[in-house]
Amino acid sequence: MTPQMIAAAAQRLSGHIVQTPILNSPALDRLAGRRVFVKAECLQHTGSFKYRGGRAAISALSVENRRRGVLAMSSGNHAQGVARAAQELDTPATIVMPSDAPQVKIDGTRNYGAEVVFYDRATEDRATLSADLAAARGLTIISPYDHPEVIAGQGTVGLEIAEFAKALGITQCEVLVCCGGGGLAAGVALALEHHAPGLTVRPVEPEGFDDVARSLRSGKRERNASTTGSIADAILSPMPGEMTFPILHRLCGPGLTVTDQESLHAIAIALAHLKLVLEPGGAAALAASLSCFDEINGDSVIVVATGGNLDLALLPQLQKHL
Amino acid sequence: MTPQMIAAAAQRLSGHIVQTPILNSPALDRLAGRRVFVKAECLQHTGSFKYRGGRAAISALSVENRRRGVLAMSSGNHAQGVARAAQELDTPATIVMPSDAPQVKIDGTRNYGAEVVFYDRATEDRATLSADLAAARGLTIISPYDHPEVIAGQGTVGLEIAEFAKALGITQCEVLVCCGGGGLAAGVALALEHHAPGLTVRPVEPEGFDDVARSLRSGKRERNASTTGSIADAILSPMPGEMTFPILHRLCGPGLTVTDQESLHAIAIALAHLKLVLEPGGAAALAASLSCFDEINGDSVIVVATGGNLDLALLPQLQKHL
Repeated sequence: MTPQMIAAAAQRLSGHIVQTPILNSPALDRLAGRRVFVKAECLQHTGSFKYRGGRAAISALSVENRRRGVLAMSSGNHAQGVARAAQELDTPATIVMPSDAPQVKIDGTRNYGAEVVFYDRATEDRATLSADLAAARGLTIISPYDHPEVIAGQGTVGLEIAEFAKALGITQCEVLVCCGGGGLAAGVALALEHHAPGLTVRPVEPEGFDDVARSLRSGKRERNASTTGSIADAILSPMPGEMTFPILHRLCGPGLTVTDQESLHAIAIALAHLKLVLEPGGAAALAASLSCFDEINGDSVIVVATGGNLDLALLPQLQKHL
Repeated sequence: MTPQMIAAAAQRLSGHIVQTPILNSPALDRLAGRRVFVKAECLQHTGSFKYRGGRAAISALSVENRRRGVLAMSSGNHAQGVARAAQELDTPATIVMPSDAPQVKIDGTRNYGAEVVFYDRATEDRATLSADLAAARGLTIISPYDHPEVIAGQGTVGLEIAEFAKALGITQCEVLVCCGGGGLAAGVALALEHHAPGLTVRPVEPEGFDDVARSLRSGKRERNASTTGSIADAILSPMPGEMTFPILHRLCGPGLTVTDQESLHAIAIALAHLKLVLEPGGAAALAASLSCFDEINGDSVIVVATGGNLDLALLPQLQKHL
C-alpha cells in the first residue's frame, strides 16, 4: 500500500463520488465539550463510504476482468457499494448473501442490477461457496477490506479530511472512525500519514466487539467471541483484516468503544442537529465524541459518519434518546 | 437587484457557509419518473438557507450599524439564521417572537446569543413593536424576504445550482423551490437568469396557501385567507413580498402546490433514500417532484430542500408515509 495508490484511486473516483460535506453545529460542540467536525459519508452514493472502495477496486480491473464480472460477500453496505459501482462500470456483479438477509437489503442490491446468490448460514460455508462460484464464472472477488484497491478507495476520505483540516488550520487532531474490518480506518490513516501527519485515527467499535482495540493493545489480531448481539451490525467483524491490521497497528489507536445506547443517542443528535440520518454502525464515532470526553485529546475532533442505512423501524424510539 | 449583488454576496459568504451537496438516488429517480437532484440546504448552518440571507445582509452593513445591532421578526428559521450570522459578526441581535413560540425555537435562537423579545399575538402588533424597538435602539431591521441583500444572499443557492448544472451538461431544466415570501425563489431566479438561462424556477407552496401561484396567474399580489393550518409552517406567508413579486412574476412559474400528506411522504423518502432530515416546509419542493409528474417538464429536475428543522415528535408517524 502506497500513498500513490490512494491518489490514483481519488483520480478514478473524481466526478463519480459525492463530495460529502464536513458539518458542525454549536449545539453538538456544547454536548461534546469540544469542536466536532462530522464527515457525512452517509450522504455518499448507496448511503455509505463503501461505494468508494467498490468503485476504486472495480475501476482498477482490466477491461477483460471487468467484462467477466465481480463477486462480493455481504448483506450490507459493501454489497450495495459494489453493486452500484459495477452497474455504472458495465460490470456484472454477483452478491452472495445469507438466505435470511432482510428483504430491504436484497431489494436494494438488486435495484443496482446485481445478481443475488443465497446461501444457508446453517449448512453452507460462505467463503467456499463464493470461491467456487468465482472460479466457475471467472469473477474477481472484491473483499470488503482485505483488498489494496478497496483500502485505497476508502483512503480518499482521508485525503478530503486532510484538505479540510489544512483549510481550517488544524494541524493536530484525532479522527474518530467507525471500525469493522479496518479498511476505512487503514485507508484514512495512510492518507493522513502523508498529507496531515498531525492527525491520528482512533478506531471506534461497539462494546463487547472491540477486536481492533484489543488487537492494538496486544499487538496481534484478536478475535471477537461473536459477531451478533449489537445493533451496530455494519461494523461487527470477526477480527481485524490480515492486510489492514499492520497498518492500524503502525498508525492508529488507541481504540474507543461505545454502547448501543450511546449509538442510539448519537443517531438522535445527528437527526436533531446535523439533519443527517445515521445507522448504528455509522454513528459509533459520533457516539464516541459524545461519550468518551476524557479519552479524546485536543479541543477539536473529526468524526467520520460512515453510513446512513438506518432501519426506519427504529424511528419511533429515537426521540427518547435525545 | 443586480446579478453583481449576488456575486458580491457570494464573496462575503465564501468560507462561512456550508457548500451544500446536490444529491441524487436511483430509488428516488424511479419514484419520481425522472432524474431528481436535491440541493441539500437543510445542511446549511442553522438548518436552513436562511443563514445565507442573514449573513449577506449583516455583512453588508457599515461598521457603525453592525455595532448598533440588528432586529428580526421571526419564530423560525430566519430568526436562527440572523442570530447565528450576527453572533459570528459581533453584532447584537434582537429577535421579536410571539410569546407562545415553541420553547425549542426560543432556546435555539438564544443559543446563538440573540436577545429574544416577546409580544402577545392577541393584543400587540408585531410590526409596530419592532419598528419602535428598532428606532429606540438604533437597530437595523433584517426583513425575511423584502430586503435586497437578503435576496442576494439566498441567490447564492442559484449560483451553486448553475455551476452544478453546467458541470453535468444540463442546459434546460426546472428548479423547484419551496416558497413563502419568495426571497429564495427570487434570488435563485435572478442568479439563474444570468448564469443558467435555460433553468426556470417553479415555486412550490402548500395546498390552500398558494398565494404565489395565484399571484403569478393574476399578475398581482394575492393574499392567503389564513397563515395557519398547514404543517409547512416555514412557508406560510400572507402574500408575496413587495420586492420579490416583480422578480417572481418576470422569471418564475407556474407555481405548484402539495398537500401536507405529500410533504410527509417526501420527508420519509428523504430519510430513507437521501439520509436527510427535512421539515415539512423544506420538503415541499421534493414532494412536488414526487406528486406533480405531469406538471413538471423535462427528464431531470432540480429540487431545493430548504430546511431541516423538523419537530422530532413527528418521527414516530413517518414510517407509515414511506
